[in-house]
Formats: sequence, C-alpha cells, structure tokens
Amino acid sequence: MAQNDSLSEFLQTAVEAAKRAGEIIREGFYQTKHVEHKGLFIGEETTAACGITELTDEPTWIVDPLDGTTNFVHGFPFVCISIGLTIGKVPTVGVVYNPIMEELFTGVHGKGAFLNGKPIKVSSQSELVKSLLATEAGTKRDKSTVDATTNRINNLLFKVRSLRMTGSCALNLCGVACGRIDLFYETGYGGPWDVAGGAVIVKEAGGIVYDPSGKDFDITTQRVAASNPLLKEAFVEVLQQSE
Amino acid sequence: MAQNDSLSEFLQTAVEAAKRAGEIIREGFYQTKHVEHKGLFIGEETTAACGITELTDEPTWIVDPLDGTTNFVHGFPFVCISIGLTIGKVPTVGVVYNPIMEELFTGVHGKGAFLNGKPIKVSSQSELVKSLLATEAGTKRDKSTVDATTNRINNLLFKVRSLRMTGSCALNLCGVACGRIDLFYETGYGGPWDVAGGAVIVKEAGGIVYDPSGKDFDITTQRVAASNPLLKEAFVEVLQQSE
Repeated sequence: MAQNDSLSEFLQTAVEAAKRAGEIIREGFYQTKHVEHKGLFIGEETTAACGITELTDEPTWIVDPLDGTTNFVHGFPFVCISIGLTIGKVPTVGVVYNPIMEELFTGVHGKGAFLNGKPIKVSSQSELVKSLLATEAGTKRDKSTVDATTNRINNLLFKVRSLRMTGSCALNLCGVACGRIDLFYETGYGGPWDVAGGAVIVKEAGGIVYDPSGKDFDITTQRVAASNPLLKEAFVEVLQQSE
Repeated sequence: MAQNDSLSEFLQTAVEAAKRAGEIIREGFYQTKHVEHKGLFIGEETTAACGITELTDEPTWIVDPLDGTTNFVHGFPFVCISIGLTIGKVPTVGVVYNPIMEELFTGVHGKGAFLNGKPIKVSSQSELVKSLLATEAGTKRDKSTVDATTNRINNLLFKVRSLRMTGSCALNLCGVACGRIDLFYETGYGGPWDVAGGAVIVKEAGGIVYDPSGKDFDITTQRVAASNPLLKEAFVEVLQQSE
C-alpha cells in the first residue's frame, strides 16, 4: 500500500512534468526553428541533469524531453515527452505526452494503461497479414545500416498489411498499447529514454515488449519489439529471417 | 468575378460535405470495425455515385470519402475526406479534412491555401539532405512492386534527412503544403480521388506537383511527386536513379 501510494505520487510528478514540458513544446512547434542538439537526463531519484546512462536498482527517472526531434523541427505532429521510472531496473511508471495532439498516455506497473484517463489495450489481432507495422528509418546512414533497414522492410512488406513511420519511438510504443498499431520494432534508436516510458504503457495495456530476436527486452541495448502476445512468435520469425 | 463567386460556392459546398462526412468518420473511428470496401464517386457537376473515371473538361467533383482506409480500420489518426473539383481538367478547388486531428485544408485556384482558415505555405528548404520525405508502401505485394518500393527507399535514405509513412496520400500532399514534409512521392496509389484535392492545396501553398520523372503531373496516371520548387530538380534526379 505504501508502495502504491508512492507509485501514485511518482505518476503525478511525471504527469505534471510532462504537461509543463508540453506547454513549451507546443509554443515552439509552429515557429520556424533550428534544433542542433537536445538535452536529456537519466538521474537517480533526483532529476539532476547529467549524462550517466548506467542503470542501477535504485528508483531512476529516464526522461526524453523531446522524442521526435526531427518532427519538431519540421512541424510534423508526432512529438512527445517520454518519462519512465525504473525500480530494480524494471520500468514501473510510464508517461508519454504528445502536446500537439493532446494525448497523454500513462501506465503504472500493475495498475493498467490509459489514454487521457481512459483505459487502453493492445489490439486482438492474431494474423500477421492483417497487422499494421510501425518502424523507423533511424538516423544512421552508412550503407550496411541502410541496407539492413530496407532489407527488413522488404521482407516484412510481404507478410504484413502495411507500414507506418511516425518518427517517434515512444509514440510507436503507445500506438501498440492502444491498438492503433499491431507491430513495432526498431534497432539502433537513441537510448533507454526512447523506450522507458512506453514499455510500461505497452505492458499495462496487455502487450509485450521484447528483443527483436524474441529474447527478453533489455532497456540498454537499443533493440525493441512490441506487440500483443498473439503476434510475437510469427513477428519474431519474420524479423529473424531478415537479421 | 462571376467565376470567383462560383468558386467560393463550390468551396463552401465541398467544406460542408467534408464536415458532414467527417462527423460520420469520427463517430466510427474509435469503434472496432471491419471495412472490406469503400465507396467513391467521380461525377460531373452532380455528385451522383458511379464508377466512371473518365475525366472531361466539365466541372467535375472527384471525391474520396475516406482516404486512409487501413488507418481508419486500425484507429491510426491519419484519415481524411478528400474533395477536388476539376474545371477543364485542372484541379481548381481542393478540400481535405482530417476529422480526428480536426484539420481542414482548403485551396482555391488563385486564392491561396489554408489550414483551419490560416494561410499555409510550403517549406523553404533547398537542401535534399535536410528534407523530410513522405512516401507509402502501397497495397500491391507482388515481388517486383515491393522490390521497386524498397529500392527507391534505400536510394533515398542516403539523400534525405528522414522518412515518414502516414498511410494517407491526400494528407501527405497537405503535409507538403503546410511545410511539415518537404518531399512526397507515390506511385500506384488508388486513383485521381487521392490527389485531386491535395494537388490544388499544394499549388496554392506555393508548391509544385509533378510526375516523379519530372514531367507534368497527370491526374489519371497514379504517379505523383510534390515539393517546393527549390527541391524539384534534385528530388527528380534521385527518383530517376531508382526508377
């Protein structure tokens, strides 16, 4: 009970921070802008800004104040603040807020997932061929990375209904959580701050988050896949074909 | 002046129709659904439902009551009603309405383009490497089409900043019109109803619509590219490399 109370407080803190950051993003969104870098922090208990990415068992906030930086620069509306709290390295509280579309996704371990306060769940789709897939082109442009990316897309296009690319890893996870998207994978994204919030939300919506190989998800590896449980086996099989 | 008055009336009619259709789409959007087919019509002067796609010089409404059908089925928020009016085969009035994001794009030949009543214009980007590209995976899944699609994507990823896929051709055109996207191309889309509305809006926002080969846009060919004028030459060059 004490833990529940404290998780509620953590959630409230994260939602308030996301809303406040959202105001700033919304203000800047429609202006002409040039963004070269973005700040981020991973801090233990306190939210001191620093560059440490070693994760311990202590309660740790993992924050991306602007996921979808390219979208923000271009005015493409898939931008968000992503806030995750890990306890014992387990993602436990997740808040992802898109201030342009005014969508607030939240999840707390054992307490369900919500979009603007309403419960959400993953899709019930069981057939790959009827599934909507999301992935991203990433930012690396060396030949082997780009070839691997397009080879996987080529392979997957024969197996799924269609493909979406939104430019926000955290919002792709939330898309799986609320059933807009059936399948998502990405490798080589920025870091744990892209997935720490969304991972909780997917799990609490009845979905699963895993390594594209089918092994357990490791928040430090920059490899993620997410779906409902029914699609995992078939999805991993296709992903493995194009590894 | 008589023509201006009549164009204003055409616009008003189209906006009213789009808003009314938008209500129906919005109601259905959050429900579980199975859509197998969608109705569409292309009619001369009257809006009688029929399957004729031969375009004459007469004023002709070209309507897609639901662009982004897969998105609608999945609850992915890029859906719209697209309405275009051609006069003398020239797209003259365009209305594209996304009832989920509540964005109404309008354009009238010689009168500018607007998003929810505010003037919009294409981006001023002149460098391909800083440009955000949109395209689609389409619906055809034969090997030669899929290979051509992913080969083009592979080639383009080395030249542009990043890639988005929204699942709505009309909204991709509107994305170019309001500068969210710098570049868009698609081949093999459904038909003139996907582009008739958006083409006017792009042009009235200061952009250009052309065949991916660089030749003149032909609304009947299922081939479209759009950008600001500064990017056309470089974009066509890359598209030609991967034809």
